[in-house]
Amino acid sequence: MIDLTLAAAQTIVSRALEQARTSGLKPLGVVVLDARGALKAAQVEDGTSLRRAEVALGKANGALALGIGSRAISARAEAQPHFVAAVSHVIGPAALVPVPGGVLIRAGDGRLLGAVGISGDTSDNDEICAVAGIRAAGLEPETGA
Amino acid sequence: MIDLTLAAAQTIVSRALEQARTSGLKPLGVVVLDARGALKAAQVEDGTSLRRAEVALGKANGALALGIGSRAISARAEAQPHFVAAVSHVIGPAALVPVPGGVLIRAGDGRLLGAVGISGDTSDNDEICAVAGIRAAGLEPETGA
Amino acid sequence: MIDLTLAAAQTIVSRALEQARTSGLKPLGVVVLDARGALKAAQVEDGTSLRRAEVALGKANGALALGIGSRAISARAEAQPHFVAAVSHVIGPAALVPVPGGVLIRAGDGRLLGAVGISGDTSDNDEICAVAGIRAAGLEPETGA
Amino acid sequence: MIDLTLAAAQTIVSRALEQARTSGLKPLGVVVLDARGALKAAQVEDGTSLRRAEVALGKANGALALGIGSRAISARAEAQPHFVAAVSHVIGPAALVPVPGGVLIRAGDGRLLGAVGISGDTSDNDEICAVAGIRAAGLEPETGA
Repeated sequence: MIDLTLAAAQTIVSRALEQARTSGLKPLGVVVLDARGALKAAQVEDGTSLRRAEVALGKANGALALGIGSRAISARAEAQPHFVAAVSHVIGPAALVPVPGGVLIRAGDGRLLGAVGISGDTSDNDEICAVAGIRAAGLEPETGA
Repeated sequence: MIDLTLAAAQTIVSRALEQARTSGLKPLGVVVLDARGALKAAQVEDGTSLRRAEVALGKANGALALGIGSRAISARAEAQPHFVAAVSHVIGPAALVPVPGGVLIRAGDGRLLGAVGISGDTSDNDEICAVAGIRAAGLEPETGA
Repeated sequence: MIDLTLAAAQTIVSRALEQARTSGLKPLGVVVLDARGALKAAQVEDGTSLRRAEVALGKANGALALGIGSRAISARAEAQPHFVAAVSHVIGPAALVPVPGGVLIRAGDGRLLGAVGISGDTSDNDEICAVAGIRAAGLEPETGA
Repeated sequence: MIDLTLAAAQTIVSRALEQARTSGLKPLGVVVLDARGALKAAQVEDGTSLRRAEVALGKANGALALGIGSRAISARAEAQPHFVAAVSHVIGPAALVPVPGGVLIRAGDGRLLGAVGISGDTSDNDEICAVAGIRAAGLEPETGA
């Protein structure tokens, strides 16, 4: 697989939400970007707050921008908040959200295919759902842990 | 129905794409916003250009911003391009794209539930798919014709 | 070749500028983006105006955004100026410049690898240099003609 | 030398990358701006993340905006994060990235010619490559140390 297909992206989203419902999480927004940073698929559950999708998008966008899972960006933001704030600004309107839940999607051979961003419950729970979705599609998650 | 549910949004997206495949259209990007302008669901087919989703989003966003289908915004843009350019600017980064394919979603009683934006084939074909998706969900399309 | 390599991008830029010097054109700015829309290589000749690189970038960016050479975007802008103005807005800060000189770069098998944007002389001459650079790298130009 | 020539900028970029390859660094993005803040030359190595060039650009842009190497901006950001955040905002989309690796380029007589921004490895290593490139062009680096 060279590019992230819509079929794979759909599997990631629906299996991430299945995981969320099984675990009784709060309503989530799930966004999948391809390796170009282009929107591939999204679903936002009923009852989410107004800008939940933007937060999810910011997690995925930041992971792709810097090439590391958003958990690693979160650690960097603790150490050097001014660096992460600045990168958020220079990468444009979609910006970045430096907490866990933005997970890189890799093929088995390591090639970067895209990123998932999830927001709505705790960042740790958001990330668990992202990992579940990516694995269900037969792909490799990279959380930044 | 008071709000646009994720289930309805998913039906709209998948049936719009079914229509596109039946008609042999070029690959589409389909975005559904709820009445607040918040992203509810999206799918972008394989082989679309880099910013296809942004164009689809701009159609839906403009329809909601002005409360009319984007076909009507297109007509307004022919008559008063400066007005539409200015509105595009003031409504922020998602802006608006003033061509057909941004279709309001209404409940049977006329209540506004959201909007669909589709881009990828001709604007007329994009709109046909949006209408098909909305009808398949048992809702009412308003194209701005 | 799956991705546009830096080596290929450098060939494109240097051979485009060689063409410009052979033809005695005005000083050019040349920008190469990969298929993700990410900057890969750029050179801006001595004596160019302050925002020459941004104009070149806008040509390449627009071509990738819509998946057509900027000559085709130019034709669309003549027919539907409000559409092109709106797309320029929704695709973000790098926007688009709808005149010839933004040329898609394709591999021999048709796969999209990126885009070149050139600005500084007439749009037709800018485009001639872009085509020369892409061909010199053994790749296929798509001008939108 | 009054202005930064393209020939000098090209030397800076290629010698910075030579230094990076000799040292076995991660893939880098290298951007050179002239004294007006206009893009003069850039090369982004294969395998960099999606927004690496924007981070490099932000380092060079910030150095020029404030007239000090980005290492000095980094120190200022530790002491007064609100000041640096605000400057980042007011100087526009290219903003600034307040970590080492944005190095001013001066002529022998002290005249400011431009700035190099490098990103991809540690900030200290990025800066070492910028300094090596500037010196190889017979010019004076100012890191902000």
